Amino acid sequence: MWTRRLAAILAAATAVLGTAAHADEGMWTFDNFPRALVAERHGVNIDAAWLERVRLATARLSGCTASFVSADGLLLTNHHCVEGCLAEHSSRERSLNESGLLARERTDEIRCSTQIADVLVDLEDITARVAAATRGLDDRAAKERRRQTLTNLEQSCEDTSSKSRNPLKCEAVTLYGGGQYWLYRYRRYTDVRLVFTPEDAVAAFGGDPDNFQFPRWCLDMALLRAYVAGRPARTPQHLKIDFDGPDDGDTVLVAGHPVSTDRQLTVAELQTLRNDVLPPQLLRAAELRGRYLQFAKTSDAATRIGSDPLDSLENSLKVQRRLLDALLDDEMLAAKRGQEAALRTSVARDPKLSALYGDPWARIEAAQQTEIAMLLPYTYLEDSAGFSSRLFRYARTLVRGAAERPKTNAERLREYRDTALPRIEQNLAGAAPVYPELEQLTLSYSLERMREWLGPDHPVVRRLLATESPDSLAAKLIGGSKLADPAVRLALWNGGQRAVDASDDAMIELARSIDAEARALRKRHEDEVEAPVELASEQIAAARFASLGTSVYPDATFTLRLSVGTVRGWDENGAPVAPFTTLDRLFERATGRPPFAVPERWLAARPRLNLATRVNLASDNDIVGGNSGSPLLNSKGDIVGLIFDGNIHSISGAYWFDDAKNRAVAVDAAYIREALTKVYGATNLVEELSVGH
Amino acid sequence: MWTRRLAAILAAATAVLGTAAHADEGMWTFDNFPRALVAERHGVNIDAAWLERVRLATARLSGCTASFVSADGLLLTNHHCVEGCLAEHSSRERSLNESGLLARERTDEIRCSTQIADVLVDLEDITARVAAATRGLDDRAAKERRRQTLTNLEQSCEDTSSKSRNPLKCEAVTLYGGGQYWLYRYRRYTDVRLVFTPEDAVAAFGGDPDNFQFPRWCLDMALLRAYVAGRPARTPQHLKIDFDGPDDGDTVLVAGHPVSTDRQLTVAELQTLRNDVLPPQLLRAAELRGRYLQFAKTSDAATRIGSDPLDSLENSLKVQRRLLDALLDDEMLAAKRGQEAALRTSVARDPKLSALYGDPWARIEAAQQTEIAMLLPYTYLEDSAGFSSRLFRYARTLVRGAAERPKTNAERLREYRDTALPRIEQNLAGAAPVYPELEQLTLSYSLERMREWLGPDHPVVRRLLATESPDSLAAKLIGGSKLADPAVRLALWNGGQRAVDASDDAMIELARSIDAEARALRKRHEDEVEAPVELASEQIAAARFASLGTSVYPDATFTLRLSVGTVRGWDENGAPVAPFTTLDRLFERATGRPPFAVPERWLAARPRLNLATRVNLASDNDIVGGNSGSPLLNSKGDIVGLIFDGNIHSISGAYWFDDAKNRAVAVDAAYIREALTKVYGATNLVEELSVGH
Repeated sequence: MWTRRLAAILAAATAVLGTAAHADEGMWTFDNFPRALVAERHGVNIDAAWLERVRLATARLSGCTASFVSADGLLLTNHHCVEGCLAEHSSRERSLNESGLLARERTDEIRCSTQIADVLVDLEDITARVAAATRGLDDRAAKERRRQTLTNLEQSCEDTSSKSRNPLKCEAVTLYGGGQYWLYRYRRYTDVRLVFTPEDAVAAFGGDPDNFQFPRWCLDMALLRAYVAGRPARTPQHLKIDFDGPDDGDTVLVAGHPVSTDRQLTVAELQTLRNDVLPPQLLRAAELRGRYLQFAKTSDAATRIGSDPLDSLENSLKVQRRLLDALLDDEMLAAKRGQEAALRTSVARDPKLSALYGDPWARIEAAQQTEIAMLLPYTYLEDSAGFSSRLFRYARTLVRGAAERPKTNAERLREYRDTALPRIEQNLAGAAPVYPELEQLTLSYSLERMREWLGPDHPVVRRLLATESPDSLAAKLIGGSKLADPAVRLALWNGGQRAVDASDDAMIELARSIDAEARALRKRHEDEVEAPVELASEQIAAARFASLGTSVYPDATFTLRLSVGTVRGWDENGAPVAPFTTLDRLFERATGRPPFAVPERWLAARPRLNLATRVNLASDNDIVGGNSGSPLLNSKGDIVGLIFDGNIHSISGAYWFDDAKNRAVAVDAAYIREALTKVYGATNLVEELSVGH
Repeated sequence: MWTRRLAAILAAATAVLGTAAHADEGMWTFDNFPRALVAERHGVNIDAAWLERVRLATARLSGCTASFVSADGLLLTNHHCVEGCLAEHSSRERSLNESGLLARERTDEIRCSTQIADVLVDLEDITARVAAATRGLDDRAAKERRRQTLTNLEQSCEDTSSKSRNPLKCEAVTLYGGGQYWLYRYRRYTDVRLVFTPEDAVAAFGGDPDNFQFPRWCLDMALLRAYVAGRPARTPQHLKIDFDGPDDGDTVLVAGHPVSTDRQLTVAELQTLRNDVLPPQLLRAAELRGRYLQFAKTSDAATRIGSDPLDSLENSLKVQRRLLDALLDDEMLAAKRGQEAALRTSVARDPKLSALYGDPWARIEAAQQTEIAMLLPYTYLEDSAGFSSRLFRYARTLVRGAAERPKTNAERLREYRDTALPRIEQNLAGAAPVYPELEQLTLSYSLERMREWLGPDHPVVRRLLATESPDSLAAKLIGGSKLADPAVRLALWNGGQRAVDASDDAMIELARSIDAEARALRKRHEDEVEAPVELASEQIAAARFASLGTSVYPDATFTLRLSVGTVRGWDENGAPVAPFTTLDRLFERATGRPPFAVPERWLAARPRLNLATRVNLASDNDIVGGNSGSPLLNSKGDIVGLIFDGNIHSISGAYWFDDAKNRAVAVDAAYIREALTKVYGATNLVEELSVGH
């Protein structure tokens, strides 16, 4: 399934600039949707009113997308997008993920304490202001000034907005790898509650083996509700669901928030990913998968509490595996090399451009040497791969937050700027249980791998493990920390530097003890890798704009995009794959054992069901992770499906769009109707969604 | 550490032909040692007597090498080469691996039931006979005739020998990827007993983190003894140990049995390894590692019984990881491509050769398409990656053995030819305990991965898992099998087809049920991949011989080789690595926790020890897995060290020899003396080895 984890995987990536679109490739910003081209190709009219209506009805969740589907704040998204909330309300004894949930009364709806929903209400181009601020500076100075400028623009935007009746959140957005800068203004809902999810067994029928596969039979849906001041939000701008679903060949559009793509990386950057980033990441993930799976066998409780992290991990493992496969495709790399050489030659031959930019590709390539040389310590110490632990993440946030907040807003590490603090506080206050046995598993594992990859004689490893094993150290750290308690976290946060300095919490002590080394690595990475790559990428973007203008789309940046496509199967090794699946096959594939077990409730409902109901469908929309939960819209802007995944070929969409095989995968609206009416008897929701009207 | 597992990793590989050696690259056969070149370069005289003496004192173990070091059959090898024997004599309660062993009397020496020691006593070139037999045949017919010819030659060799006083084992050997065929005659010792090993904690000090690293501090040694008719073997042809060890810059030679190299694969074959073989193998290994590590945490007994398979796995994981790194080196691949293009052009331009051979590279490339298309089912069903279980391996052997033995010798699958049967019987009779909890771990894991990679709708997966989970099926299979008992295995083996047909052992039933599919895959692989690749490889070898003769060495094939080199450090990122380590640093690096815990016995002995003793050393001999346990010899042919590993750069030696960084790693003879005399007080062995004489 598509999720936000893609962002972490592609952390090393810096987007540059979109190529000219062919076929229906493209994740378009709403301000630059190729309306004429789409009218010509699809015969549909996506006008300004259409765009505004859909934009205001689409919401960004943590790592996912949702859409408003009633006037009372009801949001449609995926089951897998609410797994964090299900885990928050589960325990060793009881799993909401297993049981599902149906709130028949609004008072039964349960709060997802760290979930938010952001609606993009306004966009402002600030490219010229950023350019003016950084003009003539060298790469490091430009990076620093850029960061300060974006922080200041965000802050003044929020300051202005805070005086209005509906204060908005402001977020600076970098598009085209620095070719454009924008201020996006969001209406933020911080009280989001869970209304409905089916059992995991039907939501994710087929589990990891079926994940990223098609044909598919998943009811990967959930309903949330946004609240304001303790009451359901009023959302007149919502979308209608067409429960008949789409037909083969229909034009369909997807509005959502793709997290990240790397289509404009240089060849040198792609090679770093292929050779140095992905293989060790894959090995770490595969080993951790084995540890979770073996841990799950020790008890039912272990199975229950391990299932959420395992699901996420297996998903990202499959993504990373296919990303590596994509980069091992020498033909693809040769094509990228060809495109790059062409643009590079045109810059070299243009006396003005070459005087202005020199050879930005060579500078990116040079920066890769530093990137590779410092990759392991950076990954383990600054990216915290050596300290896989929720308690450690809290500790890092508290230690750094205390050090950063006394600084002026513009001087801080960017994740601690004022506009980001409310979200940090919400996460620190979040009620998700911390299970010490899972902490022990992940922390001892990550310490062990840090020792393997940095080596037993690395100074930090030596200091931490001079008389301890990874297991014994992890046990001491977890046993010596009270950060599982939100009240303790908030007290340290509110107590600031003095409280953190005085703390003898073992995890705080650990975070403090490695902070100098970790910050030094970050500084070096910013100065010697990020700064030259950012400046060079801006220059490559500018060179591209010079020839292509904005007839191209920017790489995905977890901001709102619209993709157009067609309901369509594909050809797999000479055999056609049909674009729809039907309900009969779900029962035929059931084995009675997870992940192919159909819940009792469904077996009982089977005689009432129309087994010809369309369940899942494929379309050629250009989407990636973050589009999970996106509405699949017909040309009128009504919902005909619910995006939840792509097929296996879609994963290479991180680097290029393969029109022949890349397919988005959605729940058909007809399956949602069949389930809500005939299986769950969800009268209240059927009414609210006007099912069948 | 170097072990036999390299062979499995490189199963997909077919060697072609050695390049001209540069520096001291080369694993030379004893019949073609470049004596003049070595005399010129090193000033040492390796004459026929030297070669014969060393050859007759060197033995091949299962996947390793050893050398005779006394007249009473005493064999020096590595601790990690006897881990299987240690596991055989261990239990949930007691680990010989942990405790080590010192037999003070010969009656205390313990039998390693599946260990053998083979000494190469004679070599015969049969190239002309094989060529005559296959002349004019197409690839499939040639493959079949070649197989029959080699089986028949082996058989008649053993028949002849069996009438003599000292019957020998005969083995057909393919060198230069089919450029030469040989009959090797071995004296086989089937009664091999364990005399001494230190504790795992000093033998493998630093464990997996230090594995394949240098500097290093390991006493990776063991002593075995060959027996004949219940009495120590008489071995007048043994080597003397020079306990002073070598010095920096000394010429040193390594005699041993490197398992496999792939230096002559075509670029197409290397790409198959890089893109299709290694990444999924790595993922499987990494996940299994996580499962073993998590399993080990459940109890002390689990730690004990899991340690042997975990050690092997972590070792092969590190090897595979570095093999992938090597293949991701685009410069190396470009160099290979250049060499290949040169030879290919010279064949294409030679009317006679091109008429004779056509384009063998293109045929190998075409065969890769089939290889890749069938790789997953072949791996899971025929190579048994879907059934990782010792019980299953026994069952496969019994089912196939029963079907094959009634056929004529030449018609059988080659692993069931008459000359191979005694070894199979020895393995079936072997007493190593089978732990059901480990079987459950590996079998359920492999079934789960088979379902993932072949897909839940693959016919075999569907049949096996229609109403079972991988866990429940594994439990039924293991619970329903009695093959853990050697007597049951031997009864089925001796009972032949009728006994196997009548068996209701669950594992036998499984092996029977998938045999048709697995054999069909094997047949297709032999016909469509192996046959064309073998013929094309023979032709490429012939083209190479035409220009280079035997001034080159063949790829490693687990046959006896001699490598020459120099005691020598190297340069790591600008910092020199010295060629020796000393004992003081062992104690400084100890943390008190595995794998950096020094045993109590050693801590007690510390005041008596000379801490300046040289412990391990590096030399630039060209070795790979299978050379473990090899004697490191000075120019006189005396042992000055004991090979046990290579540095991290040595792993790419599978594909090419990097003179600048590839180093062999050995135990210094001085460390052996220090340990035996001052730590273990092994008076009997000190006497037998003439320590200090």
